[in-house]
Amino acid sequence: MPDLLSGNAVIGQSGGPTAVINQSLAGVVEGLRTGLVASGKVGRIFGMRHGVRGLVKPGADGLLDLSQIDKARLEAVARTPSAALGSTRDKPDEAYCEKILAGCRRNDIRYFFYIGGNDSADTCRIVSEKAHAAGYELRCFHVPKTIDNDLLENDHTPGFPSAARYVSLALMGDALDNASLGGIKINVIMGRNAGFLAAAASLARGRAPDGAAPQDRPPPHLIYLPEVPFSTDAFLADVEAVYAKLGRCQIAVSEGIRDSAGAEIGPKLMRGVGEVDAHGNVQLSGSGALGDGLADLVKTALTPKGGKAPRVRADTFGYIQRCWPHPSPVDTEEARAVGRYAAELAAGGETSASVIILRTSNPPDAYRSECGRAKLASVARRTRHVPAEFIAGSNDVSAAFHDYCRPLVGDLPKLERL
Amino acid sequence: MPDLLSGNAVIGQSGGPTAVINQSLAGVVEGLRTGLVASGKVGRIFGMRHGVRGLVKPGADGLLDLSQIDKARLEAVARTPSAALGSTRDKPDEAYCEKILAGCRRNDIRYFFYIGGNDSADTCRIVSEKAHAAGYELRCFHVPKTIDNDLLENDHTPGFPSAARYVSLALMGDALDNASLGGIKINVIMGRNAGFLAAAASLARGRAPDGAAPQDRPPPHLIYLPEVPFSTDAFLADVEAVYAKLGRCQIAVSEGIRDSAGAEIGPKLMRGVGEVDAHGNVQLSGSGALGDGLADLVKTALTPKGGKAPRVRADTFGYIQRCWPHPSPVDTEEARAVGRYAAELAAGGETSASVIILRTSNPPDAYRSECGRAKLASVARRTRHVPAEFIAGSNDVSAAFHDYCRPLVGDLPKLERL
Repeated sequence: MPDLLSGNAVIGQSGGPTAVINQSLAGVVEGLRTGLVASGKVGRIFGMRHGVRGLVKPGADGLLDLSQIDKARLEAVARTPSAALGSTRDKPDEAYCEKILAGCRRNDIRYFFYIGGNDSADTCRIVSEKAHAAGYELRCFHVPKTIDNDLLENDHTPGFPSAARYVSLALMGDALDNASLGGIKINVIMGRNAGFLAAAASLARGRAPDGAAPQDRPPPHLIYLPEVPFSTDAFLADVEAVYAKLGRCQIAVSEGIRDSAGAEIGPKLMRGVGEVDAHGNVQLSGSGALGDGLADLVKTALTPKGGKAPRVRADTFGYIQRCWPHPSPVDTEEARAVGRYAAELAAGGETSASVIILRTSNPPDAYRSECGRAKLASVARRTRHVPAEFIAGSNDVSAAFHDYCRPLVGDLPKLERL
Repeated sequence: MPDLLSGNAVIGQSGGPTAVINQSLAGVVEGLRTGLVASGKVGRIFGMRHGVRGLVKPGADGLLDLSQIDKARLEAVARTPSAALGSTRDKPDEAYCEKILAGCRRNDIRYFFYIGGNDSADTCRIVSEKAHAAGYELRCFHVPKTIDNDLLENDHTPGFPSAARYVSLALMGDALDNASLGGIKINVIMGRNAGFLAAAASLARGRAPDGAAPQDRPPPHLIYLPEVPFSTDAFLADVEAVYAKLGRCQIAVSEGIRDSAGAEIGPKLMRGVGEVDAHGNVQLSGSGALGDGLADLVKTALTPKGGKAPRVRADTFGYIQRCWPHPSPVDTEEARAVGRYAAELAAGGETSASVIILRTSNPPDAYRSECGRAKLASVARRTRHVPAEFIAGSNDVSAAFHDYCRPLVGDLPKLERL
């Protein structure tokens, strides 16, 4: 039996919520109860209100005691999308992490669990190092979460499969809507730095062989990722080729597309100056500006001289893609598992880790995954991008991406056209 | 036995598609097969490609022969969202209807079924009158369809329950996302002339008593319909009151909101000149401009002098709300029933009608509805609005609306907060 600390535990949720982030919360609570609470090492289980913001509040003002929450209620919370504890966009620096550590001391916290993306992993890393330097024994665990799927070391991240499921279903319906009335339809999908979610649009067409021309693909005909430099001229030529042949064109575009110099297209097309967040980023989500800007470009370029403008429509998939209350079953299960695994690592005497998901089996065998662990520093602040093998040319994803993503999203309806 | 015409039948789909419009197509085919086809009166069943556009094409170029489609395929099509035959935005005038009549003569069509909204009912009416005047015996039936729920004579219209289900689920998830990170969230919902779909946002909160102040309501805190004159000043005061108390505010707004003079707010807030369609309307859907404009207004008004702007986000619910491939079960059943009923009216010797839905039982008893018939002229070109009893003050809907709408949308998940 390893040397286990006695004290309290705290759990927080950070960054953009997902449809299954509360499964991870429930997983940590469940894992603690059957482990460190049962063995008498952990007394109380606290939840941070709005992430580390709650932990730095005076006394225990920003903490919620989860010790007594009953199983039925915990399960109901687990099934509910979006951070039940509240979330935060704060990205703690060294000084902020000192306050976090003070909050831990104040509440006799020895086990720190943070559910979030690469910034949350970094918070865990800094807090862990500060605690060590100060001689305060603290175990720090990062539990992965992000619809962007951009964490290193992971096969994929909890939250992504549910968002990918939403995007797949939306594109399936939208392709038929586009076929009904014709014209050009632009769908802007979340994912600032990684195009995994926009790539998931391709699932709407099933598995298609690589190498078909855009006009010969089942919709979506065109997919643009942040990983592939975006050229406005090439984009307009792509759209024109599809529209000329089919009288319609369905497009999936990541909000994070950028030009060959790495500059984001979104801000360039937006009116005025976009809002800048704490990370120095211009706000891309929660606004239709990129989609509207692209639609304007297409309309201008494809209107014949003195002729009629084509029908061009843009939908910007907003927050619904990360909070739709019918998540992917695989995601539901894995999000629970990573939370439980973090608590098990703590019960096993680990001092710190980032929990990761590893795929152990894929179709034609049954899809299976298991949890593993990585160093906090190998996940913290780093971004995983869509790898080259998942990208096909300048405007599509590969069949290899389909094989990677399809098992994650669950059943998709079988649709039939005339 | 009434005097029944011998000839072919044609079915068309018009206007914005819905998630269940193909159920109505399948219903007409099914009803014809067991009726007029079985009795030898109807020979072939044609589908119009892109509505009446297909019927006015030379010969039978724009028609699809549905006579031989097998039952399994028909069922698969029925389950598929968006017009399987293709749709059109054409709004036929007298001259256009002459061409439609010529298409009927050319293809020996004696039974004309048109699935659509009030414009489609009007097309049926004009074609029916022209046929009568010309001495060409033609039976014309309008099958109701519109997510806007704006047809007179109907309790509600096929397509609306599925769109309302999507909106309810989206608002449920979005309310929690908004609670996670705080700030002001604006959701723009389809419905140019009638606010039923925006009103359906209220289902996300369950049944709430009338009369609570906005900040004391469960979210959505504020709902704006085209039926209630929209005042920018009142809107900003509403938002400020909720945000001041809760630090967040969830808003549902119909794309068709207008001021006390009846002028639409959308075009006023849009950059440049919006696109104008064949009906003389500025394009509201397929653009984030109204949401972004409202967000700008809120941000400007609620930013304290020299202080930090509140977090304001806008999502414009686009085409996904009418094509999401998981429709409401009630809607699925009723959309099938109205199609079948139209074919039954034809088999019963009726010369023309608009099929309507009547509610015969509501909770606490089991919800039940049946089909009925109205005169084409009583549905054609007329618009039903949200009645006063469903509206609560300037920024909400009533509990009576909940009782009306809730049985239509099917099961909603039970969510739990901490």
